[in-house]
Amino acid sequence: MKASILTVGDEILIGQIVDTNSACIAQQLGEQGVSVCEMRSTGDTHEAITNALDELFALSSLIIITGGLGPTNDDITKHTLAAYFGATRMALHEPTLRHITKLLSRRGIAIGELNRNQALVPDTCEVLLNLAGTAPGMWFEKDGKLAVSLPGVPHEMEYLMANEVIPRLKKRFRLGKVYHKNIATAGIAESTLAETIAAWESALPPHLRLAYLPSLSGVRLRLSCYTADAHAGVADEVEAYLRQLQPLIPSCIVGYDGDTLESVVGQLLKARGATLVTAESCTGGRIAALITAQPGASAYFKGSIVAYSNDLKKRALGVFQSEIEEHGAVSKVVVEQMARGAQCALHADYAVATSGIAGPDGGSPGKPVGTVWIAVATSDKLTSHKLNLSGDREQIILRASYSALNLLRLVLTSDGNAC
Amino acid sequence: MKASILTVGDEILIGQIVDTNSACIAQQLGEQGVSVCEMRSTGDTHEAITNALDELFALSSLIIITGGLGPTNDDITKHTLAAYFGATRMALHEPTLRHITKLLSRRGIAIGELNRNQALVPDTCEVLLNLAGTAPGMWFEKDGKLAVSLPGVPHEMEYLMANEVIPRLKKRFRLGKVYHKNIATAGIAESTLAETIAAWESALPPHLRLAYLPSLSGVRLRLSCYTADAHAGVADEVEAYLRQLQPLIPSCIVGYDGDTLESVVGQLLKARGATLVTAESCTGGRIAALITAQPGASAYFKGSIVAYSNDLKKRALGVFQSEIEEHGAVSKVVVEQMARGAQCALHADYAVATSGIAGPDGGSPGKPVGTVWIAVATSDKLTSHKLNLSGDREQIILRASYSALNLLRLVLTSDGNAC
Repeated sequence: MKASILTVGDEILIGQIVDTNSACIAQQLGEQGVSVCEMRSTGDTHEAITNALDELFALSSLIIITGGLGPTNDDITKHTLAAYFGATRMALHEPTLRHITKLLSRRGIAIGELNRNQALVPDTCEVLLNLAGTAPGMWFEKDGKLAVSLPGVPHEMEYLMANEVIPRLKKRFRLGKVYHKNIATAGIAESTLAETIAAWESALPPHLRLAYLPSLSGVRLRLSCYTADAHAGVADEVEAYLRQLQPLIPSCIVGYDGDTLESVVGQLLKARGATLVTAESCTGGRIAALITAQPGASAYFKGSIVAYSNDLKKRALGVFQSEIEEHGAVSKVVVEQMARGAQCALHADYAVATSGIAGPDGGSPGKPVGTVWIAVATSDKLTSHKLNLSGDREQIILRASYSALNLLRLVLTSDGNAC
Repeated sequence: MKASILTVGDEILIGQIVDTNSACIAQQLGEQGVSVCEMRSTGDTHEAITNALDELFALSSLIIITGGLGPTNDDITKHTLAAYFGATRMALHEPTLRHITKLLSRRGIAIGELNRNQALVPDTCEVLLNLAGTAPGMWFEKDGKLAVSLPGVPHEMEYLMANEVIPRLKKRFRLGKVYHKNIATAGIAESTLAETIAAWESALPPHLRLAYLPSLSGVRLRLSCYTADAHAGVADEVEAYLRQLQPLIPSCIVGYDGDTLESVVGQLLKARGATLVTAESCTGGRIAALITAQPGASAYFKGSIVAYSNDLKKRALGVFQSEIEEHGAVSKVVVEQMARGAQCALHADYAVATSGIAGPDGGSPGKPVGTVWIAVATSDKLTSHKLNLSGDREQIILRASYSALNLLRLVLTSDGNAC
């Protein structure tokens, strides 16, 4: 079954709002084996919506529509769908009216004309009661064409997708199956990765598709199986291919599916009952922020000293003035002293340190913007690396943060050789 | 001039990635008076892209295309555009090849076949040199139809939009004029703000449009003038309305246009030659990361102690064990000791501190998830506030961080009364 997604509303077209609904809907449809062939955002005019419905029904038998149902807009989506699916009148949907009245009275508001109108729906649609808000969802079906209209507020859309749309789709159609496996990598560029695993990739059978999804934290590989009825053995089959992949990029695989550098480092620390601190200069607290974005980070993360000034590097981390004078703050010896200093001062098992030039100012011919030293201290070892990073200030900070987390991961997995 | 935006790539269609590029492009076009009439995401097949080009050129004379240019995909976007715009061959673009070679050699990588192919471009396009990455942008123009192809990696797209596309559009076309004035507010909810300024808003003339743009850092107001040739006096006219607005929300206005809480706090500190440190528990380094994301932050920011564990609160910030036992770590007395402790230990003029429960675990009936204490220490005063924040872990951390920065702003502008 093929689907498309249509978003209605000027706030998307002027860039005021990022459309997060379409990705969420596509994920949920994908899990049921329904593939999305197009996403579209259009303005809220009768003509634009009708035109989009015509063009999208030429490609797909299901269109999920979000937006254009709020109490203050002119309900153009509802009336356009009514006309498109041959409604003769708008009918009051009593359960929706009762629900809206109850919802507003709980907030101490009496129901007004605008909200009452939301309970009026075209007589040709099936109503999807929206217990998360006031605008009901609508299910229109005719001549093999199915259009589902949902409110644009993300948590209302999510409620209706999970509780009304997906269950109805499952009941109404015999859906295909799809299988995805994600492989998170770090420390290897997309092109190097592609060349390293080229032979493995070309040996994949046609029903397994590989995608490269690069980001600042690393390249994510995704293996997908789209066979009509994903055969029972696909998980085993994918496992077999992963066993062949691992030795090709042994230290670059961070984890699978939802795993990230932050979560994997957390799991490794937790598993050995160890604690971590960071000593950050150019990353300015970003590594600490990434680590503490993980729920439960307090089990292994004690804290951080963000030593942005040289004064703090000396005062809080015990870096020697003489070393800063001789080698500069962005140097192997200073970043290693920072790591060791934080580890000792804060009584932790592991420490990560960074010192570098994030720019746009502060670079020199010998140490251009993007020069960053990272270090990891354990009880008996110091490991450090020099990075030459590209990008703007924000990207250099994030790349340095992820590189430091990856170095920690490599140290924790007892493999100090970067991929 | 009307434009549309086309995104190419399966990763959008399967919902793996939220398309943030289209909103960013629409905003930048809107600032030049170019309105976007449709956004579309399609799969990377020759047929889907050609079909989209046909349909979008029927609505608009400019199409901005992102995605489908990475080294590992099959370059379907490039070849489809080549065919669509009648290219006879792919030509090597020497400046791009030199740039890719240099970029890779800085990372210690020799150029391979995949990357070399990125420097091959259709002979009918003008190349937009991508100094932020390896895939070049391409500008195709024929019979009044203009298509601009950009890489899908957000920072590469942003670089090319700002440095190549917008300047060329300005030179090539007589664009409409549009005037925007942004007013950044903090510490006031959208509905409260709307009610407070309702009379002012309804007195605005029809050619000035007001938009509310809420985010986790506060609500941004945008006044726009869309007259065909924005009249010469519009800046003065807007200034006059702003003078009326200011007394209505005196302490809530953070700044104008590009001003943010982080940048304004930085300006205030710099102006008085003062230094800042942070002592962060629940925000986990996020405030330090926000501050150090500003270029030149080292002029006023000395650093931070992220005291995630109680051990660190005592050891590094001098918080008394007895106070933690009596009041808990999330309390007025502890957050004030943290602020004072950081200020003294790190020798700074100002200190900001946070202690709270970001969730999802750790809440209790008396201190539910979202309870956060924030404090600011000056040489002679301690100011603290209790926040009751909603949202998930990430939202609570960010809301607490921005609230703390706003409290510092209010203290720095000698107005301790939150808006």
